[in-house]
Amino acid sequence: MSATTKVSANAIRMLAVEAVQKAKSGHPGAPMGMADIATVLWQQFLQHNPANPDWANRDRFVLSNGHGSMLQYALLHLSGYDLPIEELKQFRQLHSKTPGHPEYGYTPGVETTTGPLGAGIANAVGMAIAEKTLAAQFNRDNFDIVDHFTYCFLGDGCLMEGISHEACSLAGTLKLGKLIAFWDDNGISIDGEVEGWFTDNTPARFEAYNWHVIKDVDGHDEAALQAAIKEAQSVTDKPTLICCKTIIGFGSPNKSGSHDCHGAPLGDDEIAEVRKELGWSHAAFEIPDEVYAQWDAKEKGTAAQTQWEAKFAEYAAAYPELAKEFERRVIKQELPADLNEKADTFIRQCQADMADIATRKASQNAIGFFAGQLPEIIGGSADLAGSNLTLWPDAKGIQEDAAGNYVFYGVREFGMSAIMNGIALHGGFVPFGATFLMFMEYARNAVRMSALMKAKSIFVYTHDSIGQGEDGPTHQPIEQLANLRLTPNLTTWRPCDAVEAAEAWRQALIKQEGPTALVFTRQGTKAQARSESQVADVAKGGYVLKDCAGTPSIILIATGSEVGLAMDAAAKMADAGTAVRVVSMPSTEQFDAQEVSYKQSVLPAGVPKLAIEAAHTDFWYKYVGLEGDVVGMQTFGESAPGGVLLDHFGFNVDNVVAKASALLA
Amino acid sequence: MSATTKVSANAIRMLAVEAVQKAKSGHPGAPMGMADIATVLWQQFLQHNPANPDWANRDRFVLSNGHGSMLQYALLHLSGYDLPIEELKQFRQLHSKTPGHPEYGYTPGVETTTGPLGAGIANAVGMAIAEKTLAAQFNRDNFDIVDHFTYCFLGDGCLMEGISHEACSLAGTLKLGKLIAFWDDNGISIDGEVEGWFTDNTPARFEAYNWHVIKDVDGHDEAALQAAIKEAQSVTDKPTLICCKTIIGFGSPNKSGSHDCHGAPLGDDEIAEVRKELGWSHAAFEIPDEVYAQWDAKEKGTAAQTQWEAKFAEYAAAYPELAKEFERRVIKQELPADLNEKADTFIRQCQADMADIATRKASQNAIGFFAGQLPEIIGGSADLAGSNLTLWPDAKGIQEDAAGNYVFYGVREFGMSAIMNGIALHGGFVPFGATFLMFMEYARNAVRMSALMKAKSIFVYTHDSIGQGEDGPTHQPIEQLANLRLTPNLTTWRPCDAVEAAEAWRQALIKQEGPTALVFTRQGTKAQARSESQVADVAKGGYVLKDCAGTPSIILIATGSEVGLAMDAAAKMADAGTAVRVVSMPSTEQFDAQEVSYKQSVLPAGVPKLAIEAAHTDFWYKYVGLEGDVVGMQTFGESAPGGVLLDHFGFNVDNVVAKASALLA
Repeated sequence: MSATTKVSANAIRMLAVEAVQKAKSGHPGAPMGMADIATVLWQQFLQHNPANPDWANRDRFVLSNGHGSMLQYALLHLSGYDLPIEELKQFRQLHSKTPGHPEYGYTPGVETTTGPLGAGIANAVGMAIAEKTLAAQFNRDNFDIVDHFTYCFLGDGCLMEGISHEACSLAGTLKLGKLIAFWDDNGISIDGEVEGWFTDNTPARFEAYNWHVIKDVDGHDEAALQAAIKEAQSVTDKPTLICCKTIIGFGSPNKSGSHDCHGAPLGDDEIAEVRKELGWSHAAFEIPDEVYAQWDAKEKGTAAQTQWEAKFAEYAAAYPELAKEFERRVIKQELPADLNEKADTFIRQCQADMADIATRKASQNAIGFFAGQLPEIIGGSADLAGSNLTLWPDAKGIQEDAAGNYVFYGVREFGMSAIMNGIALHGGFVPFGATFLMFMEYARNAVRMSALMKAKSIFVYTHDSIGQGEDGPTHQPIEQLANLRLTPNLTTWRPCDAVEAAEAWRQALIKQEGPTALVFTRQGTKAQARSESQVADVAKGGYVLKDCAGTPSIILIATGSEVGLAMDAAAKMADAGTAVRVVSMPSTEQFDAQEVSYKQSVLPAGVPKLAIEAAHTDFWYKYVGLEGDVVGMQTFGESAPGGVLLDHFGFNVDNVVAKASALLA
Repeated sequence: MSATTKVSANAIRMLAVEAVQKAKSGHPGAPMGMADIATVLWQQFLQHNPANPDWANRDRFVLSNGHGSMLQYALLHLSGYDLPIEELKQFRQLHSKTPGHPEYGYTPGVETTTGPLGAGIANAVGMAIAEKTLAAQFNRDNFDIVDHFTYCFLGDGCLMEGISHEACSLAGTLKLGKLIAFWDDNGISIDGEVEGWFTDNTPARFEAYNWHVIKDVDGHDEAALQAAIKEAQSVTDKPTLICCKTIIGFGSPNKSGSHDCHGAPLGDDEIAEVRKELGWSHAAFEIPDEVYAQWDAKEKGTAAQTQWEAKFAEYAAAYPELAKEFERRVIKQELPADLNEKADTFIRQCQADMADIATRKASQNAIGFFAGQLPEIIGGSADLAGSNLTLWPDAKGIQEDAAGNYVFYGVREFGMSAIMNGIALHGGFVPFGATFLMFMEYARNAVRMSALMKAKSIFVYTHDSIGQGEDGPTHQPIEQLANLRLTPNLTTWRPCDAVEAAEAWRQALIKQEGPTALVFTRQGTKAQARSESQVADVAKGGYVLKDCAGTPSIILIATGSEVGLAMDAAAKMADAGTAVRVVSMPSTEQFDAQEVSYKQSVLPAGVPKLAIEAAHTDFWYKYVGLEGDVVGMQTFGESAPGGVLLDHFGFNVDNVVAKASALLA
């Protein structure tokens, strides 16, 4: 290492150990081990502008081993991002910009939230897909408006996680030449030396994925790192894995190379030893001016951005329409002004059509409509395109056409979902991806991460209940809907027909921030009649679909495929003279967000309520209370035709009427 | 293929296409493509006894590509298991023994439920771990009482799933020489030819995992298959992957080699063509006697079992204690008769100790106690042993000692959980495995599968709330507890102190069938005083921990770390003259399963109720109703010391008293 690089890296090490010590909590080992790699990459290669973390053409950097957060905070602080030293002193404290793991939206320059292992590299794959696809859509001869790398640091833990397999396998297939990952090969995980549980030949594994692999790079050797990064940049048809041998806790005389420094403060005594070892004589959190000067990337970054802006101005002159669209999609991230009006027309047409179709089919129609309006939509499915009904006439796989709008993700639900988050965070796209609702579980943590980050990913889930039928209980969701609905920031829709399906799609697309889960049936549903105001009310998440004269004696609340059943049961009860109201509740979260007065008007207190949904009963007590009842599921399903199962488990008029009548008594 | 093997394989093909056609639903492609492999394996190699599917030393067979269920049903029927042809005619119908995917407990000879892709190979890894560890524990010179192979069929989908990476990587590290997997390399998945989304060099990938790989085996060539299986059996220090080139839908002139035959009936016309192609002249579901004779494995299987029993009798004479223990653990699968009495003593001691410790620490103490009683316990953690506190003094990693009782699973939550299910299903062990509660999500579908199969896996989850602290919202569960509690057949415990923790462990271990989730704090908890009858009531899942004179004016319901808070708030309210009852509810499912009269005595109707839990509020309305209230979470957490966060989010006496008082008004 050159003297300046060495001292720059030591600044990272000292900030990391001091912040962790002050917080009495955190992970010093990874920042100390990767400090040299980070310094070479950030000082000598990374294209970024600390003065504008949102510059569209910046390189993306992802710390997939997110427990090493102090590495990233030190890099951002030293490079000149708006992250003052006071924030580093507040590491892991309430409302600081330096939470325990890097969190998107909290810290300028943090591109994605990491911590759950392996998710970061999958996000990075998504960013690289976004870059490559956006470049193919917008770049023109001599105008490489979109042209940046995606760098990712990852550790042994990321490599052990299954999601790394899904994401990296697909990255190889997609030939993501601008994705460059650095493996922190330090031989240590929390339980100790990894040789007892992690003996993969990782270079061979990544070669099997069609990656370019650079082996045996000394992660503490500047020249070796420079050569590796240049080589990685030069390989344009494969992602690159740079395998960096490092010493965890580098600089700690008594704890380096051991799991003792992985996830706990070093202690004041050992920090004193680190100072000696590194020749660092400054007080805690004190960085000499010359080190700050060495790190400062603001000027270089502003120059890079200015140069890009000049190029963009020329591009705009040559391709005004493209430039305008680039500004809308990528820079302002706005929807077309006329989207809502056109959506209204489409939804009114759905209402007029009164088509009795499966809501997955209605979803496909809606996708066709909205994709025509929004070229930023990039769809996909985890090998279930024909079942999820996610292809539309103008869908083109990016595998065949680099400027396409659809990803054949393969059987990789978790990878798909985390990749979608990366695409959404990159900007320029609104990703959707589909699987069966049951296999949301395979991807569950990526769905949660999208909600935590408020990333605008749209998760499409079909085959949403026992109505799925013959595939049996392994494929029939029971508790999954509640799981989605209880996830903060996520909005879940389970529409009952084509109109609600179209509105659900609109709401997902116009949602300012955060993800949406769209849940659709496999089987046909019955189109419901609605007045114009009822059509408008769908957007409120819950509304009176069928009312009675005066105060109802009972309210039936239903969602999705059970709305038709509720209507039939209500008709039978009404014929017998009971005053019944039917409330369709496609989105409980959207309904909960309405004014109290509206909610009370739909579900007045004191009226008995029966919820009907082919999912777990327990979710519904928040609406029906202890005096109400639920027609739902408390067991797993069975294998049989869907109609047989629905009847078998009590989703029939007789049972609904019986349960409702019991509440009247 | 020899003539007899060919006709045997064609019998499978015809049963598969006919059953799928009759059901109008199912997957004929995989059974047709893998029929030759299956015939060679089952007729010429598999050690099993159709007359006794429970024979302890049988080879295990797992169909990881479970959508090919008709392959397995045909094999079981033809080999002589109790699965008559009438059941095959009822494929995918309600209450048949032939559900859409193979389901453990429904069909004799089905070793595990498959369908969710990749899970089967992970189960198989668990079975192979169980075999190897059980052999090391019980075998003695000249007595290889435990000595069987685990065979697994898998498809491209299994290989794309991340769980295959986790499980197969660990299988290589553990040198599971008796695990033999067959990859159905047919180049087709549901979306079509896999080359657009699956371009891994799979043989190289598995070699990187330290597997023995046999490449380029013609899956329709008997001699090649025989040679491959013999080679695989001869390699004792590595698992083997046999890469079988096959044609999906083999025998279908117009649909083989295409995704058209993957997941839909062939249609009557094409079935007629198949008959011609295969030279099969028999009516639907008719198998000639000579084909049955060729398949019948009852006699051979009974002989094999008899031979093993003779060996076991000699073993029992030489090693009576070992044989007795083998009978208890493996054959009868019973717990020691004195377990409950000893557990009572241990729990009473915990009560007497009144130790204010984290429940994860209390769990570790309980593990130490129970592992001393139950050598069938095999523990583990996904690289968090020191955080989950899952090691006990006598724990020995199977990596170091083949007869050990602990698995260092590495950072592989999903793999771990599905492997645990395989260990549990194999018999002879009660597996537990640990991670942070948040990362239950990575493993979510394996938890569900254990519940669906009623496998006795014990999932240990620590760091159970925002009390986790500085790691921040990526590591702080909010909606996860509800997700566990809404899973049918799963019992969840969230104990408040050492006594409840010990009882929770006991309940998990004595549960007749089905899994348990044990949820523990990172932070310290306060030991609660209890009378003898209160100690006994813990087992009921919910009980009155602190009562008032007469009818309570309010009931506080709390779990885990919030029980101490509820007690403090109750004390303050009692001081102010309010009649308060505190109910500790460590397991809502266990409480729900009690007699109605008991439940009403604990939570009488008409008394306002306030639930207190550092998890999502919405779960609790089933106990507090619309008139009650919940002190809980509706947002994600933050990064800060745990105590700061609990206070910040309202888990303090003032807020609880204020909310409770509002209910009194």
